[in-house]
Amino acid sequence: MKKHILVVPGDGIGAEVTNVGKQVLEVIAQKFGHEFTYDEALIGHVAIEATGSPLPDETLTKMRSADAVLFGAVGHPKYDNDPSAKVRPEQGLLKMRKELGLYANLRPIKLFDELLDASSIKPEILRGADILFFRELTGDVYFGKRERIDEGNTAYDTMIYSKYEVERIVRKAFEAARTRSKKLCSVDKANVLESSRLWREVVQSLAPEYPDVTVEHQFIDAAAMLLIKDPKRFDVVVTGNLFGDILTDEASQIAGSMGMLASASVGDSTGVYEPIHGSAHDITGKGLANPLASVLSVALLLDISFGLKAESETIISAVDSVLKAGFRTRDIANSTTPADKVLGTNAMGEQILQRLLA
Amino acid sequence: MKKHILVVPGDGIGAEVTNVGKQVLEVIAQKFGHEFTYDEALIGHVAIEATGSPLPDETLTKMRSADAVLFGAVGHPKYDNDPSAKVRPEQGLLKMRKELGLYANLRPIKLFDELLDASSIKPEILRGADILFFRELTGDVYFGKRERIDEGNTAYDTMIYSKYEVERIVRKAFEAARTRSKKLCSVDKANVLESSRLWREVVQSLAPEYPDVTVEHQFIDAAAMLLIKDPKRFDVVVTGNLFGDILTDEASQIAGSMGMLASASVGDSTGVYEPIHGSAHDITGKGLANPLASVLSVALLLDISFGLKAESETIISAVDSVLKAGFRTRDIANSTTPADKVLGTNAMGEQILQRLLA
Ligand SMILES: CC(C)[C@H](C(=O)O)[C@@H](O)C(=O)O
Ligand SMILES: CC(C)[C@H](C(=O)O)[C@@H](O)C(=O)O
Repeated sequence: MKKHILVVPGDGIGAEVTNVGKQVLEVIAQKFGHEFTYDEALIGHVAIEATGSPLPDETLTKMRSADAVLFGAVGHPKYDNDPSAKVRPEQGLLKMRKELGLYANLRPIKLFDELLDASSIKPEILRGADILFFRELTGDVYFGKRERIDEGNTAYDTMIYSKYEVERIVRKAFEAARTRSKKLCSVDKANVLESSRLWREVVQSLAPEYPDVTVEHQFIDAAAMLLIKDPKRFDVVVTGNLFGDILTDEASQIAGSMGMLASASVGDSTGVYEPIHGSAHDITGKGLANPLASVLSVALLLDISFGLKAESETIISAVDSVLKAGFRTRDIANSTTPADKVLGTNAMGEQILQRLLA
Repeated sequence: MKKHILVVPGDGIGAEVTNVGKQVLEVIAQKFGHEFTYDEALIGHVAIEATGSPLPDETLTKMRSADAVLFGAVGHPKYDNDPSAKVRPEQGLLKMRKELGLYANLRPIKLFDELLDASSIKPEILRGADILFFRELTGDVYFGKRERIDEGNTAYDTMIYSKYEVERIVRKAFEAARTRSKKLCSVDKANVLESSRLWREVVQSLAPEYPDVTVEHQFIDAAAMLLIKDPKRFDVVVTGNLFGDILTDEASQIAGSMGMLASASVGDSTGVYEPIHGSAHDITGKGLANPLASVLSVALLLDISFGLKAESETIISAVDSVLKAGFRTRDIANSTTPADKVLGTNAMGEQILQRLLA
């Protein structure tokens, strides 16, 4: 198979982890006889520094013509502490999602057995948990009108959804539920929000088309609680952009660490694959970042954008095998991990590559 | 001390749990020589059924003239599954908050030692956790303009904050931080939302007035994750209405169960004290509800609205003693709880009253 992949490392640890991800792509191509070509592009803070824009046109053009994008992270503490900054790294990320029509963000939360103890949650609560989140990614309060009014003393954002936006993501979730345990949980705040009532109406109106799927509705506050209390009660979860942002970060504790979670953003055009962790400037450049979320993003990329199931599974097995051999990055190590098994970013990458080459 | 207390049971298990709360008030009055008088009023679904309105004028008038309100819960599944209902129980709750100017919702999350094992989170992660949430309660997307447009095909809600609204709640949080471990965490989504950037600006502008307090900012997604990963890193947390709704429900897992958490809503007028759990229609009328959140709401009421510290501490000690004696309601029991120690609502109430009378 001939494919062109755009690597977009972005900010912070993005460069370190996508570097490992790209090596995995190279080894997979070699092993399975594919021809992958690569290019690179800027986004976020590094793009602002280089071009003044968080998403240069050149990056967007390259994204549109690529077969898939391997993405790192965006963000920089400089902007977080300066609420008045006009140009911000996150604008690049949001613009990319909108321009590429990446309305469906898939976040699988699956615990590798070996990491049962890495979580703050009890192993008996976690064992067997396996959740697939569908987070809507191009609507909601992320893209509604926002403004300062009243001489700067008041600020508002608009939480907004149209039926067609809800319908297309909810359909994807129903379809995924069909291939899994036929349970769909939709999360909203319909007891307060009009946009949530519209969301719930759409879910209810589509349900009869999927009679084999059992639908449940939860309010976001209850869902945030139940996710920790009893993660196994969830299978496929569909929710809006903001609630999805919150719930999936929270759910990272089910997988032991945020450093283990990959995501796929798909929609009208090129799919984008990225870790759910952010730019993590506190550990940037130290070689400490866990590259496994980027490695697992590559597995999602091969599966979803290229339909290469065997290749994808080979990667997941390699991750499993490395964990079984006892290797850990710092974020998933605990007090019983022997010091010589605690690896940095590249050494962890090496372990994965070795197994892929074997 | 002479005080007039309005009991507002509301919907579902509200009646069962406030009944126990009121008995506790009666025993405290008797024991400490206070003269408490009581009245009752309707809110929520029961008020709609009786009067057509989720917050009848009569209830509001009684609330304004009371010295404190002991509140139950509102909500009914009938409305949750009917997104198009025009009159809803929650409107009564929101109107009450707005009309009484209850802008500060205090939610203390403290784990009773005996319940270390009731949580899904590991005991070693929980031990010593003690968080005081300040949730803003009269602004945000709860009270901004909301509407259907585009022939009903689009819906929006407005997330809105003015500086003075943020300032008054943040000041309360700073002041509380001073009396505790001098750490304040403010939670927002300033990397995306303009209302969050205004929120963060206000926190930053007030910080110099409280030089003894260390301020940290977290994004809501990271906060939802950190709360589970390492609850002990938080002390006083201040956040907006929506993020506070989500985080405090999630945090209930730190206290073992939602059935243990009380809250105080205070502001310009009468304070309202209520469990953070909802109406729980699945167990309504079965005598199974945990009354301890209502009992602990009474403790908050006596402390905050009446300044009766000793009385408040007597109640907390009674709860502690009942738990030490091994008594549990179903929600906080586990497989090692002997069957004869698993109590219903009234039997649990009896245990508390006995200790207060002793
Ligand atoms: C960086 C930020 C804007 C982004 C979001 O909120 O969507 C991130 O948290 C994510 O989940 O991808
Ligand atoms: C019932 C609902 C409207 C309410 C809220 O969201 O504020 C409840 O969840 C709460 O936290 O008091």
